[in-house]
Amino acid sequence: MRALVYHGPGRRSWEDVPDPRVVDATDAVVRVDAVTICGTDLHILKGDVPAVEPGRILGHEAVGTVTVTGSAVGTVKEGDRVLVSCITACGRCRYCRTGAYGQCLGGGGWILGHRVDGAQAEYVRVPFADTSTHPLPDGVTDEAALMLADILPTAYEVGVLNGRVRPGDTVVVVGAGPIGLAAITTARLLTPSHIVAVDPVPARLEAAERLGADMLVGADDDPRTAVADLTGGLGADVAIEAVGVPETFELCTRLVRPGGHVANAGVHGAPATLHLEDLWIRNVTITTGLVDTYSTPTLLDMVAAGRLDPAAFITHRFGLQQMDEGYRTFSDSRTTGALKVVLARN
Amino acid sequence: MRALVYHGPGRRSWEDVPDPRVVDATDAVVRVDAVTICGTDLHILKGDVPAVEPGRILGHEAVGTVTVTGSAVGTVKEGDRVLVSCITACGRCRYCRTGAYGQCLGGGGWILGHRVDGAQAEYVRVPFADTSTHPLPDGVTDEAALMLADILPTAYEVGVLNGRVRPGDTVVVVGAGPIGLAAITTARLLTPSHIVAVDPVPARLEAAERLGADMLVGADDDPRTAVADLTGGLGADVAIEAVGVPETFELCTRLVRPGGHVANAGVHGAPATLHLEDLWIRNVTITTGLVDTYSTPTLLDMVAAGRLDPAAFITHRFGLQQMDEGYRTFSDSRTTGALKVVLARN
Repeated sequence: MRALVYHGPGRRSWEDVPDPRVVDATDAVVRVDAVTICGTDLHILKGDVPAVEPGRILGHEAVGTVTVTGSAVGTVKEGDRVLVSCITACGRCRYCRTGAYGQCLGGGGWILGHRVDGAQAEYVRVPFADTSTHPLPDGVTDEAALMLADILPTAYEVGVLNGRVRPGDTVVVVGAGPIGLAAITTARLLTPSHIVAVDPVPARLEAAERLGADMLVGADDDPRTAVADLTGGLGADVAIEAVGVPETFELCTRLVRPGGHVANAGVHGAPATLHLEDLWIRNVTITTGLVDTYSTPTLLDMVAAGRLDPAAFITHRFGLQQMDEGYRTFSDSRTTGALKVVLARN
Repeated sequence: MRALVYHGPGRRSWEDVPDPRVVDATDAVVRVDAVTICGTDLHILKGDVPAVEPGRILGHEAVGTVTVTGSAVGTVKEGDRVLVSCITACGRCRYCRTGAYGQCLGGGGWILGHRVDGAQAEYVRVPFADTSTHPLPDGVTDEAALMLADILPTAYEVGVLNGRVRPGDTVVVVGAGPIGLAAITTARLLTPSHIVAVDPVPARLEAAERLGADMLVGADDDPRTAVADLTGGLGADVAIEAVGVPETFELCTRLVRPGGHVANAGVHGAPATLHLEDLWIRNVTITTGLVDTYSTPTLLDMVAAGRLDPAAFITHRFGLQQMDEGYRTFSDSRTTGALKVVLARN
């Protein structure tokens, strides 16, 4: 088969590799029907995620059809349409048994396209298939489901729910890329009074407005002034960091009111400064997190019921064999306006 | 009257000052029967809290007897024994109306010995007396109540409850001064399986053991190894920072398990480094906070019922006029072994 292989910082190729097969009895092999590229893949290609070794097939967001299952797999079978989640879960360790699948101690967590071969390929081996795939309800398209492999549950769990967004809140989302936009979409489920989107790229702010942000803060605006004006000087109830650099994290800690919440959803490669000399007295809560995907079944149900339209995040579509073009389009998002690109089997 | 006056960094004196009087209708004047000195007062004397201006009477922890009340005061009257809490609350602003008294927007918060004259004096003016004093139940001694002016509710609310200590947890308390020891005492109310105390001073570790810590980590021990050994390599469920320097805060973020909580209770004068490159993926929650004192009435009831013995924190007793000696003893705690010093009217 063909797959997107990481060959060290800055080097990738769409190339022939051996087909995956069932290794453990709990595995399934899934034919990839649609796959997408994540900002995290770009971090990997920059060399920011040293655990990813050269030779690794990337990708952790796919929808496909089960082709083979190991002898211990009981909930999915050949021919089933499934979501291949970014989080693999052994289902048995102390973290999995409390729903904290992202922290799986039994060999799962975020492993696809990270510690084992991923889904930017024609086929993917999915470990612990019973607890790492989600059968797709009828009426949920591949494209819609694909947005639930990572960005929607990540933004919802790590941004909105960790940030404890409540009705009436003023929520600031710093960064209006796919995760930030998904945070805006899922924050709206909790009826905040205001959603402020902060991003230097006008096209991203336009997308933020379409998805429900009611205040847009661009490159020429001061976010602290904007949020202060909106909140009578108090600050935001919740600030969601959706970029992954120290400056945006520190900005979030400045934008939040006393007693407010900073939810970090960005993937960081460097430390930030925490201004405890100001924060110690302000009753601020800061959360970090990898998604657990405990919300994925609910989000799938909401898509099936027409309560969420995740296809709004998709800006570009390619055939699976156009992986190189997909990467170029996604990497160059400032020019192309790409949010999520979908690569589908023809 | 005589009072302890701050005259700029490094300079204090116990000197004659005018008697306080009722200024606003919501004030009370309280005769100080017992007062204590806080680590925060030492921070002020180092110049770490620039909001405190020269000429300010210090002190925010007292027990006394009401001598005069303003015309709007309804819940306390002349002759009542009251706890003068470190937190003053207007009782009317949006923060006070949600119990977040520490963040009072109506002129309260931590103001005594900070923005208005404090309680290290023969008399103290208490603004918003109805919502800033606590009548003392019968059977609660001045000394026991005094420990509830700051350290017990601070350690309980900002350390134990913000850190979400639960039965069975492994709790690490970094710093075994008065706040750390009070965190150990109040953490035990939630029946953790292990309490690890980390402090370089042997006398403090002995106090920690007396109060319920079951693992002691001193100057020659590596806290990371100790906690890893205790938790099968996983890390602590909760780490409570009770020192107030960047190193101990950063240590707490290293000691906590994925999904764990870091509760900062220390008063900080400098920023810390937040290692988001490690933490982003670990689902860690970090809280900061000034005490709100919402727990003070409950803690007073527990003292009255014999469920808490706060007098265990008191190591030295002086007359009120021996304020200088009290400060010297408390400042030099490494030599004197001082935890809390009480200065009482004779």
